[in-house]
Amino acid sequence: MTSRVLSINLATTRGSWGFAEAVEGCLRHGITAISPWRDQVEAIGLAEAARIVTANGLRVTGLCRGGMFPADSAAGRQRAIDDNRRAIDEAAALHADCLVLVVGGLPGASRDISGARQMVADGIAAMLPHARASGVPIAIEPLHPMYAADRSCVNTLDQALDLCAALGEGVGVAIDVYHVWWDPGLAAAIARAGRMQAILAHHICDWLVPTRDLLLDRGMMGDGVIDLRGIRAMIEAAGYAGPEEVEIFSRDHWWTLPGDEVLRTVVRRFASVC
Amino acid sequence: MTSRVLSINLATTRGSWGFAEAVEGCLRHGITAISPWRDQVEAIGLAEAARIVTANGLRVTGLCRGGMFPADSAAGRQRAIDDNRRAIDEAAALHADCLVLVVGGLPGASRDISGARQMVADGIAAMLPHARASGVPIAIEPLHPMYAADRSCVNTLDQALDLCAALGEGVGVAIDVYHVWWDPGLAAAIARAGRMQAILAHHICDWLVPTRDLLLDRGMMGDGVIDLRGIRAMIEAAGYAGPEEVEIFSRDHWWTLPGDEVLRTVVRRFASVC
Repeated sequence: MTSRVLSINLATTRGSWGFAEAVEGCLRHGITAISPWRDQVEAIGLAEAARIVTANGLRVTGLCRGGMFPADSAAGRQRAIDDNRRAIDEAAALHADCLVLVVGGLPGASRDISGARQMVADGIAAMLPHARASGVPIAIEPLHPMYAADRSCVNTLDQALDLCAALGEGVGVAIDVYHVWWDPGLAAAIARAGRMQAILAHHICDWLVPTRDLLLDRGMMGDGVIDLRGIRAMIEAAGYAGPEEVEIFSRDHWWTLPGDEVLRTVVRRFASVC
Repeated sequence: MTSRVLSINLATTRGSWGFAEAVEGCLRHGITAISPWRDQVEAIGLAEAARIVTANGLRVTGLCRGGMFPADSAAGRQRAIDDNRRAIDEAAALHADCLVLVVGGLPGASRDISGARQMVADGIAAMLPHARASGVPIAIEPLHPMYAADRSCVNTLDQALDLCAALGEGVGVAIDVYHVWWDPGLAAAIARAGRMQAILAHHICDWLVPTRDLLLDRGMMGDGVIDLRGIRAMIEAAGYAGPEEVEIFSRDHWWTLPGDEVLRTVVRRFASVC
């Protein structure tokens, strides 16, 4: 029996809490693993965020997020690479398990998704030496195909693994059930990720029916249709026994509630339905 | 140079027109191919719809739609199969090129998407003898993964082609750019569909950025990010030179405009951006 670790992606409590309050909230609920967003770290300052992490013995299961590589000019693409190098430094300062990448969609008015995908591969290749030198693993997070235009042109786990295979050491994947649950090739892709030792993170939430907003209507575990236990079993069979990180974007529901109520529900659901 | 045929899926003018008005509208704009929905046919009566089709020498590029196989009881699944047999009869009466299937999502409160997929395979197998005897090809339409829970658990072209291969003669695919444009395996899957001689229909519209509703915010060709010409080139290279059928669900824009304005725009865009 694996001892399961619950991590809170701080987007989940974004409705009520910044970095420091979220850490205090997590500790109140017995949670000692977090995954912050860069804007939350910037708001309190990197040094202070790192101090809080160390002082409380927190595990940082990831820093969200790098990526957003495609741009319609060479200068724009270079700015993205530079920003990703800074994200590596921040992840290193926080001793994060990985830097999560949301790679970006179509640049400008482009309809060339193959071209965008090449920009992503080139961008990761350009940041990778700094990531390796810093000891920060890069986690490519395939995003649901409904984000292909505006957030991520990497849309299946297999596609992310193809990138990992091409890029070599230091790059893996973050598997978020919200993005991959529908994939008819999911079981095979997770097994492949295990063989590649590429699984760096496992994010959980749920898919609501109906889903009222493409971005900000994710569900609490148990409120939707994702077979969370089935996917976790695939991931554990593939050799990953690391944290399950709860990441819920929910403008009209969970973000309107007090952070303590959100975390109380997360803890209860993690025990009962995950 | 292929002579291109424009077909209007009558969902596109649903905002203003029923079956007979839509046919008159199409003829006014020089369009002689249509694809009606079963509720539109039922409203005017199957015999009268068939009479209008014949009297005007219309090509019916598909009947929308059969499918919706998964159900949480054996009786429910049987009702779906019976309904699909009736849909075959209607498609035959209209001399439709195919019956389009939207196969259905998760039944009831199920989280078992593999089980739903098996119900789909079983349901098509059960209706297939009647389809073959009636001379009506079945077109499985893979739907975008964002519909996996509530509309279709067949979510990629390759998955639909796997079903075709398992089911044998009389089953092919409808390729709607809206559902497949994001797929990193699209070019290979379209080539495979060509080798299988499985392409029965090609539907077009566009993916808007932002997309404000998961179902009813599709765009007019040219208003979004889909590489329509690139996908058409793949489809023609795969040996399909048949009609391009415009299917736009657009509650807040195109459905609010007069049908003639919609069709005028369709004809202009078909010439300029497709």
